[in-house]
Amino acid sequence: MPDSPIRKLTPFANAAKSRGTHVIHLNIGQPDIATPVAAMQAVRDMDRTVLEYSPSEGFASYREGLARYYQAVGVPVTATEILVTTGGSEALVFAFMTCLNPGDEVIIPEPFYANYNGFAELAGVKVVPVTAHIEDGFALPPMAEFEAAISDRTKGILICNPGNPTGTKYAESSLSDLASLVQQHDLFLFSDEVYREFTYDGSIAKSILGIAGLEEHAIVVDSVSKRYSMCGARIGALVTKNKKVHRAAMKFAMARLSPPTMAQIAAEAALDTPDAYFEDVRKEYKARRDALVSGLNAIEGVHCPTPGGAFYAVAQLPIDDADRFCQWILESFEWEGCTVMMAPNTGFYATSGLGKREVRMAYVLDVEEINRAVACVQAALAAYPDRT
Amino acid sequence: MPDSPIRKLTPFANAAKSRGTHVIHLNIGQPDIATPVAAMQAVRDMDRTVLEYSPSEGFASYREGLARYYQAVGVPVTATEILVTTGGSEALVFAFMTCLNPGDEVIIPEPFYANYNGFAELAGVKVVPVTAHIEDGFALPPMAEFEAAISDRTKGILICNPGNPTGTKYAESSLSDLASLVQQHDLFLFSDEVYREFTYDGSIAKSILGIAGLEEHAIVVDSVSKRYSMCGARIGALVTKNKKVHRAAMKFAMARLSPPTMAQIAAEAALDTPDAYFEDVRKEYKARRDALVSGLNAIEGVHCPTPGGAFYAVAQLPIDDADRFCQWILESFEWEGCTVMMAPNTGFYATSGLGKREVRMAYVLDVEEINRAVACVQAALAAYPDRT
Repeated sequence: MPDSPIRKLTPFANAAKSRGTHVIHLNIGQPDIATPVAAMQAVRDMDRTVLEYSPSEGFASYREGLARYYQAVGVPVTATEILVTTGGSEALVFAFMTCLNPGDEVIIPEPFYANYNGFAELAGVKVVPVTAHIEDGFALPPMAEFEAAISDRTKGILICNPGNPTGTKYAESSLSDLASLVQQHDLFLFSDEVYREFTYDGSIAKSILGIAGLEEHAIVVDSVSKRYSMCGARIGALVTKNKKVHRAAMKFAMARLSPPTMAQIAAEAALDTPDAYFEDVRKEYKARRDALVSGLNAIEGVHCPTPGGAFYAVAQLPIDDADRFCQWILESFEWEGCTVMMAPNTGFYATSGLGKREVRMAYVLDVEEINRAVACVQAALAAYPDRT
Repeated sequence: MPDSPIRKLTPFANAAKSRGTHVIHLNIGQPDIATPVAAMQAVRDMDRTVLEYSPSEGFASYREGLARYYQAVGVPVTATEILVTTGGSEALVFAFMTCLNPGDEVIIPEPFYANYNGFAELAGVKVVPVTAHIEDGFALPPMAEFEAAISDRTKGILICNPGNPTGTKYAESSLSDLASLVQQHDLFLFSDEVYREFTYDGSIAKSILGIAGLEEHAIVVDSVSKRYSMCGARIGALVTKNKKVHRAAMKFAMARLSPPTMAQIAAEAALDTPDAYFEDVRKEYKARRDALVSGLNAIEGVHCPTPGGAFYAVAQLPIDDADRFCQWILESFEWEGCTVMMAPNTGFYATSGLGKREVRMAYVLDVEEINRAVACVQAALAAYPDRT
């Protein structure tokens, strides 16, 4: 497994900190939003003398609560169609291990969350990219391109909606097209929906589980990490109406015994989080997004499409090589005592050579800090010797 | 992955309960021992507003504490040689994925913990069994049998010490022989040491990490689940001095982001558990073991070697087929309102047809309940129509 571009930058960020430079971290998806108080309190109130295993499929009460949550967001699933996992990561590993054999191919629109490569490697599966473009705001590529990528080893398509690293929220018509395609070719459609609530146009992202006719094809990967700012809980879910897939995934779930007990208790309590929490969170992220995107687009030579969801934006910069620029800004640049850590977008493409002028920024800091980061990037671009 | 024999019995246990029969569960490794109070309190006292990811390798303070724990039990490792995992299960998955390629072979003395099959399947690895025998108290088979099992695809040997399902604590001379063998053939030695403290002869089980010359071969799988009766925490560790293995495992660790945060806080606090806790636990388990083993051996036709560790015993019964007997006792037998759920030992052998007269019993209940279970088994054997 190759080392990630972000990881490669860490020593340079550490060196900058050692020099006394304030590093503004736009490189990671760890939100600063407070976890719902009730979630933390539920663990404090836990009345157990033995910290026992939970059932392999997760506590029944939590799965029932989750089913009510899904029903409320328009996803008609029952508790028996939910498998609680150790983070969204494990849900995707179970999905791949269950639906794909070594040597099979899975199509993923690129740029995509780089850890998908690790899970594919674990399952011995080949990732076949279909390229989305910054000029289109990273919209879902045309179906003809998916068609062209399908081979006799193709078993599924994986999307992330809203997307990491792009922040793109797919149009409902795109999802319908994709649904027809997977039905026509009898493929699985894996959908990573962990950013469901993080949308900024008034409606949350549509789940593929709500699309009629996809019952046997749709495999949803979910997580509480972003939704309730509980990344450290490590609670996710694999949700599918395909009974065969559910049963096969249960065997992997039994082999690893159970998801974490305390974190499930916290996640169950988090289900009662009032809508007002999400409204506040969305308002906050929208302000951050708008500050970042408008700030970046005001810089000459910079293009940053407005992402509809998640808390990432990809910007195209007037530079030769994003990996070099992201290292240089940490290693050789400082503006008013600050520098910025960003993720080169190259690491999110499977096709070599793509994304060389793009960076991903996670807007997980407050507006003031975002504005400072934008000003720093602007000054850095003015000073960068290899500006194009 | 085949369904486990225990899982197959669950509907029969549930049916017995529905009839009002008290089912004595000797089938699972979920101890009833209280988790150290300090571990639970540490989570209650947690002062965080955001439940963040921990580092992928685990919190530094926890790894440093773990290193001190290992040093205290005679294992000379440092914090940088420890990778905190989501349970011992994940540690073994990382070990297999890191050290073995699809098609490689790993030798395991049978009977062995059945979930090893699942992890081997995940890694595409073939399990090659070497048979241990109840007549020898399931001692490590002679080295000649391991030699005979080694092929050019063999990359490692996996042991569990003290063992599940046998309870066998290997003689130090056996471990030395095994160490010579893996050095001679340049194999990995994977050692599942999650029952280290559960020994009943005055000394805890020796870790393979304490054997000189094994530095590049030894991969230890550990967990807090049994040690502190924290099965639901899902915190384990992969411990090795082999830097290449550690680095490769770190990539899988980064792909799954991090082990659970709250559970690590609990596990770190548990490190301060006083020796008196383990002395009490050992005293309790020894009393349970002695009640179970002496009770079983007093039944005509039953043979149960005295296990030196863990909290399992394997008994040979005067029956034709353990799977049938374990189902029959749940389905058709009751003694003073009770019946017993046991694990057929067949599920712990890779070689088909072995263990047909053996059952595994987990002595995770108090002596009174153990005695009741023994009396129930005795009465059942007297009534069983297919007694041999």
